[in-house]
Amino acid sequence: MKDCNCIFCKIANGEIPSNTVYEDEYFRAILDLSPAAKGHTLILPKEHFANLYELDDEYAKRVMPVAKMIAMAAKKALNADGVNLVQNNEAAAGQTVPHFHLHVIPRHEGDNALPLWTPGQSDPEEQKEIAAKIGGEL
Amino acid sequence: MKDCNCIFCKIANGEIPSNTVYEDEYFRAILDLSPAAKGHTLILPKEHFANLYELDDEYAKRVMPVAKMIAMAAKKALNADGVNLVQNNEAAAGQTVPHFHLHVIPRHEGDNALPLWTPGQSDPEEQKEIAAKIGGEL
Repeated sequence: MKDCNCIFCKIANGEIPSNTVYEDEYFRAILDLSPAAKGHTLILPKEHFANLYELDDEYAKRVMPVAKMIAMAAKKALNADGVNLVQNNEAAAGQTVPHFHLHVIPRHEGDNALPLWTPGQSDPEEQKEIAAKIGGEL
Repeated sequence: MKDCNCIFCKIANGEIPSNTVYEDEYFRAILDLSPAAKGHTLILPKEHFANLYELDDEYAKRVMPVAKMIAMAAKKALNADGVNLVQNNEAAAGQTVPHFHLHVIPRHEGDNALPLWTPGQSDPEEQKEIAAKIGGEL
């Protein structure tokens, strides 16, 4: 993406150096400079997509197999007890760089690296309505 | 999965009722009963895979396009300001049901539905070593 000024485009395409964990024709996976945990990796498409909504289908198909491979490698390399994948879209969801990236976060028992949500309660009638609403957009 | 006693197998295959948002040959997407936010959806493979490490490649390829579709539909249906994808592997990473599932969490500005991590610091030399270690397992 020669004409793209996005920092993740530059990193993904090797114009800005990074600690690269993996690279193929479609993606570069790099270590996050501000890691939630050791080995926190970002999978970046080499083409610019602001978020999941824009992600080209070819990339969408290929990203999870790459995540699987990196998760397993990170688990082995760092003797991790688990791995989280996180992918944030838009500022309201915590996205800080508007270039699709999938976080791969190796975890160790009790590290508190990624606080998860508090399980909420749901109303059966409301759930039916919500399911119908979302289903209606598909 | 007639011979599987896993609750997500039963839900994915329609043996236990759920608020289904989407279904195809490979996946069923249902509303989470303990949602982090309204419209919190789980994408469940119909075949049993305990986690990402076990996920069959055919499913791995197909799951992100489904997540994209549901994220966009949920955003539209609920007028959401953003969407998180989260996928937890093993108890140390917050996985509670040992059947692969991808969370799709619609977000609204300021909802605090999913607390994210505190950005950490990284040592350049250590990062090089970690990248080499993970890369060495690929």
